[in-house]
Amino acid sequence: MDYFNYKGDVLYAEDVPVSKLAEKYGTPLYVYSQRTFVEHFCKIKNAFSDMETLICYSVKANSNLSVLNELKKEGAGFDIVSGGELYRALKVGADPKKIVYAGVGKTAEEINYALEAGILMFNVESVNELKALDKAGKKMNKIVGVALRINPDVDAHTHPHITTGTKETKFGIDMGHAYQLYRSAHTYKNLHIKGLHVHIGSQITSTYPYIETVKKVSQFIKDLQKEGVELEYLNLGGGFGIIYNEEKPSTADTFALAIKPYVTGLKLKLILEPGRFIIGNAAILVTKVIYNKKGNKKDFLITDAGMNDLIRPAMYEAYHKIIPVEVSNKKEDKELGYYDVVGPICESSDFLGKDRHLPLVKEGDLLAVRGAGAYGFSMSSNYNSRKRMAEVMVKGKDDFLIRERETFEDLVDKEKIIK
Amino acid sequence: MDYFNYKGDVLYAEDVPVSKLAEKYGTPLYVYSQRTFVEHFCKIKNAFSDMETLICYSVKANSNLSVLNELKKEGAGFDIVSGGELYRALKVGADPKKIVYAGVGKTAEEINYALEAGILMFNVESVNELKALDKAGKKMNKIVGVALRINPDVDAHTHPHITTGTKETKFGIDMGHAYQLYRSAHTYKNLHIKGLHVHIGSQITSTYPYIETVKKVSQFIKDLQKEGVELEYLNLGGGFGIIYNEEKPSTADTFALAIKPYVTGLKLKLILEPGRFIIGNAAILVTKVIYNKKGNKKDFLITDAGMNDLIRPAMYEAYHKIIPVEVSNKKEDKELGYYDVVGPICESSDFLGKDRHLPLVKEGDLLAVRGAGAYGFSMSSNYNSRKRMAEVMVKGKDDFLIRERETFEDLVDKEKIIK
Repeated sequence: MDYFNYKGDVLYAEDVPVSKLAEKYGTPLYVYSQRTFVEHFCKIKNAFSDMETLICYSVKANSNLSVLNELKKEGAGFDIVSGGELYRALKVGADPKKIVYAGVGKTAEEINYALEAGILMFNVESVNELKALDKAGKKMNKIVGVALRINPDVDAHTHPHITTGTKETKFGIDMGHAYQLYRSAHTYKNLHIKGLHVHIGSQITSTYPYIETVKKVSQFIKDLQKEGVELEYLNLGGGFGIIYNEEKPSTADTFALAIKPYVTGLKLKLILEPGRFIIGNAAILVTKVIYNKKGNKKDFLITDAGMNDLIRPAMYEAYHKIIPVEVSNKKEDKELGYYDVVGPICESSDFLGKDRHLPLVKEGDLLAVRGAGAYGFSMSSNYNSRKRMAEVMVKGKDDFLIRERETFEDLVDKEKIIK
Repeated sequence: MDYFNYKGDVLYAEDVPVSKLAEKYGTPLYVYSQRTFVEHFCKIKNAFSDMETLICYSVKANSNLSVLNELKKEGAGFDIVSGGELYRALKVGADPKKIVYAGVGKTAEEINYALEAGILMFNVESVNELKALDKAGKKMNKIVGVALRINPDVDAHTHPHITTGTKETKFGIDMGHAYQLYRSAHTYKNLHIKGLHVHIGSQITSTYPYIETVKKVSQFIKDLQKEGVELEYLNLGGGFGIIYNEEKPSTADTFALAIKPYVTGLKLKLILEPGRFIIGNAAILVTKVIYNKKGNKKDFLITDAGMNDLIRPAMYEAYHKIIPVEVSNKKEDKELGYYDVVGPICESSDFLGKDRHLPLVKEGDLLAVRGAGAYGFSMSSNYNSRKRMAEVMVKGKDDFLIRERETFEDLVDKEKIIK
């Protein structure tokens, strides 16, 4: 579900023609639909409204300040993974008590920053991190809120780069070890180990891995409760999948229905960390075709957006739908051709889509790459000394520049030439 | 060959202890050895000194202004692939007549910029680009220097992401078609088609793909010469491989010996576009171990550098040697352990090296990732809202900050919050 739809022959972002945005701001351009991501956020909120649930938007999916700000207005908390993400959340005035901090490599500097800010909780990934937090708490004379991230050894059946809940990964603490840690929590004088965190991966479309996980986790918590270990929060992480192509992901309601039976009895506050589910389909990447290069078997559409702008196809073999921004109504133009849609970067891996069936695309035409909201801009780089693109947010009939396009000067701004 | 060597138990960059650089500039940190890349440049220069040869350093490998400036002082020209790279080359005062411009997606804006700068030549990748250049030349009343990039259909036997000379890629013009274009060059009134360009891939360690290529190309040029088509330049691209692990790449001299017999008779000026060969082994990435996390089979060393800083392991399954910056001389510390060296980013693909045999590594220890000069910083991003790191260049006993570390403010500098 999104608000990028054709009206007649023209693609609109909510009530604004995408071609007008391209004209006004140039290409390549990330275009966000505010209504889309707010509605996705509300879908999860509503699905879990009968439980005390804090929905912490996963900032790494897309960290633009205006995205964070709009979600904050809807009541979202934030799931952060670095000092930089904390800085961003605080910049939009997020309530620190709605911020949870995950990640395997929190530095001492980052820990201090988060303690000073007074965040709700750290999701702890190792014993040594637990010790570092206890030490930092002692030094600052604070009690540090902590959840242990346990590794449930569940295979999320997603791309190997983004599966995180199996035993061989760097993430989390195995359940046996975590059990001991919970029981010896009192030995950490400056910690309040009040939660359990689990996150099994990303872009998961089925409810089964979640059911398997919550089954294991709820039994684990019940066992702890029998030993007198009382927790306050259960953080089930994120990973809810979206539609990029032909996926049929579970809806927020389906996820909720699958999960709730196993967790309601535990009397814990729930935390969820959706990122892609909220922002994934709330953006398109608008790009102009620079050249149509005839090949032997198919043509190459060479666009002004490349892998530096959207690395998911190169990195994860990710599929993104590509559609024309304006559809010709000449009959002969409607005949479908086969195209590789590729970027201008000097690598074979630089493509947006391969073997795409599209109506005639001419040089200068605009294409929209769908599903570009999550891990799009946030993973972009200046590779090939390309300027990172502008980002625009549409709200109804209004459009707002939420990130300026970089300039050549920006590229070298921090560099110095040795005389 | 490089100037990162142990003196006693401490790793040095030329004459400076790496630990001192880490202390002075913080970690993670890219450290360059100027002597290393200048010597590599000179190796190629000397290997081809008996032919008129222009060595155009491939800016995309590493575009730091100080790197470009040092190479310019040695007489290097530049191989660019974007307006941004042209901006960089001009910024260090490069001679435009030593600049060649490659890439499949040159925009009208970039073409105008390069024409105004008066670069030596465009390496043209398609007929439509040829037309665009002719049109731009006409508008600006200039004769545009051009080389056709031909696709020799040679498999460089390298990683599929960086092989560029086989028939299925977006690169170059197939030989039959190129032949026709050379013969009809006179129809493009504002072009001077004076060169032939070929580039078969990257990190090629054997001379055979080059021999196969120059054989094909020299016959092609002889055929053209018989038809009265006279060229001035033969650009053989780059791709010379380096040692990351156990590779035994050909030396500059071996490449030269292999190539020269086929090209000397053609009476053309040679252009070469090495990037990785020059800068690849001229940098290390210095990173601190944040946590040593015990696993069941092996330990995880979690470092303060991640895939946003060096994406090659995640992206190309690339191998980089990892060595300690300071070697303990306690006997018990020398026992080797098995480690996965991983970054702090929340993805399973975020690693620097897997299954590494290292002496005991403790939290706070420094590691050096070798071979980090090419496609290291140039591909880095702010993923997970991480600040891009500082870069330092060592020349003998002196060290220079050549790029400042980013700040949190830099991350959001171009963003705007909608009210």
